[in-house]
Amino acid sequence: MATAKPKAQSERRRRSDGERSRSAILDTAAKLATVEGIGGLSLSRLADDVGMSKSGLFAHFGSKEELQLATVQRANEIFDERVIVPARSASDGLERLRLLTDGYLNYIQADTFPGGCFFASVLSEVDMRPGPVRDRLTDFLSRWLGELESAVRDAQRDGGIDEGEDPAQLVFEIEAAILLANAQYVVLRTSEPIESARRSVERRLAGAHPS
Amino acid sequence: MATAKPKAQSERRRRSDGERSRSAILDTAAKLATVEGIGGLSLSRLADDVGMSKSGLFAHFGSKEELQLATVQRANEIFDERVIVPARSASDGLERLRLLTDGYLNYIQADTFPGGCFFASVLSEVDMRPGPVRDRLTDFLSRWLGELESAVRDAQRDGGIDEGEDPAQLVFEIEAAILLANAQYVVLRTSEPIESARRSVERRLAGAHPS
Repeated sequence: MATAKPKAQSERRRRSDGERSRSAILDTAAKLATVEGIGGLSLSRLADDVGMSKSGLFAHFGSKEELQLATVQRANEIFDERVIVPARSASDGLERLRLLTDGYLNYIQADTFPGGCFFASVLSEVDMRPGPVRDRLTDFLSRWLGELESAVRDAQRDGGIDEGEDPAQLVFEIEAAILLANAQYVVLRTSEPIESARRSVERRLAGAHPS
Repeated sequence: MATAKPKAQSERRRRSDGERSRSAILDTAAKLATVEGIGGLSLSRLADDVGMSKSGLFAHFGSKEELQLATVQRANEIFDERVIVPARSASDGLERLRLLTDGYLNYIQADTFPGGCFFASVLSEVDMRPGPVRDRLTDFLSRWLGELESAVRDAQRDGGIDEGEDPAQLVFEIEAAILLANAQYVVLRTSEPIESARRSVERRLAGAHPS
C-alpha cells in the first residue's frame, strides 16, 4: 500500500505529460494548417516541426485524418478561449455582440494563427472536399453564426437593437465585415482592414438602434 | 504566287487552333484550380483532364509556374467579360456600381467556376505564399477594388452617392457583402447568401443617397 500513492502520482504525471505534449503538437499543427493548408498536414511534415519521430506522432494520432480532426478541435478550443468566453461577461445582448465582434478582430490582429482566422483559412481550402474535416468546420461556422444571432435576439429583447431588424440579415452583414477584415489583414498586415470592419459594424449597429 | 493564299490560310488556321486549344486548356485549368487548388495544378494532372500528353502541355507552358500564371490571366479575362465589361453600359456612377456588384453575384451564382470566385478561392490558398502568383492575384484585387471605388467617386460627382461618404469605406462594406456571399454559396449552394448580399448592398446604397 506504501507504493500506491507514488505510483498513482507517476501515472498522473505521465498522463499529464502526454496531454501537454498532445496539446503542444496540436498548437503547432493548427498554426501550420493556416500556412501550408490542412491537406499539407502530414504526420512526417509535422514530426519535423515538433521534433518527434513519425512513429511517436503516430502513437498520438492513428491517421492523417485523426490528426486533422484533432487539429480542428484544438483550434476550436483556442477560438472559444479568445472570442467566445470573454463575451460571457457582457451585461446585455448588444454588449455581447460587440464583445464577440471585437474578440474576433482582436484574435485576427493578435496573429493567433499566422495565416489569419483558422476557420476561414481551412474552410476555404476544403470547401470543395466533402468529408469529416469539412463537416467539423461547417459545424463550427453554424455555431459561430448562431452565437452572433443569439446575441442579436437578446439585444432585441432588451432594447439594444430594433425588433424590426432581421437577425439573420444583421448577422450576415456583421460577419461579412469581420471576415473581409481577416482576408485583407492576411495579405496587407496593417490595422486598416480591422479598423474598416470596426467602423462598418458600429455604423450598422447605430442604424439598428431602436428609434 | 498561286500557293501563297492557301499557305497563309493554313498558317492562320494552325495558329488559331493553337489559340483555341491553349484557351480550352486554361479554361479547364482555371476550373480545376478552384477545386484542387492552384498548387495542385500540375502539368500531369491537367494533362489527364484535358486528354493531352504531358509533353504536349509542356509545349504550351514551359513550367508549372507559367501554367499557373497563364491560368490566372485566363480567369482574369473571364472575370472581365462577365463582370467588368457589362458594367460599361451604365449611364452614371451609381448604376455602374450596381452593375458591378450584380455582375459579381451573377458570376458566382452562374457557377462560372465550380469552387466559386476564382480570385477569392486562389488568393486564400496562396495568401501565405509570396511569389508571382500571389502578386498577380493581389494586383487583380487592387484593380477590382479600384473599379468599385471609381464608380463610387463618379456617383458622388453625379449625385447618386452623398459626397460625405468615404469611398474606400463604402467599397469595403460592399466587397465584404459580396465576398461573404461567395464563401457561403460555395458551401450551401443556395441563393440565400446571394440574396442577403443584394439586400445588404441595397440598404447601404440607400443610406448613402444624398439627403
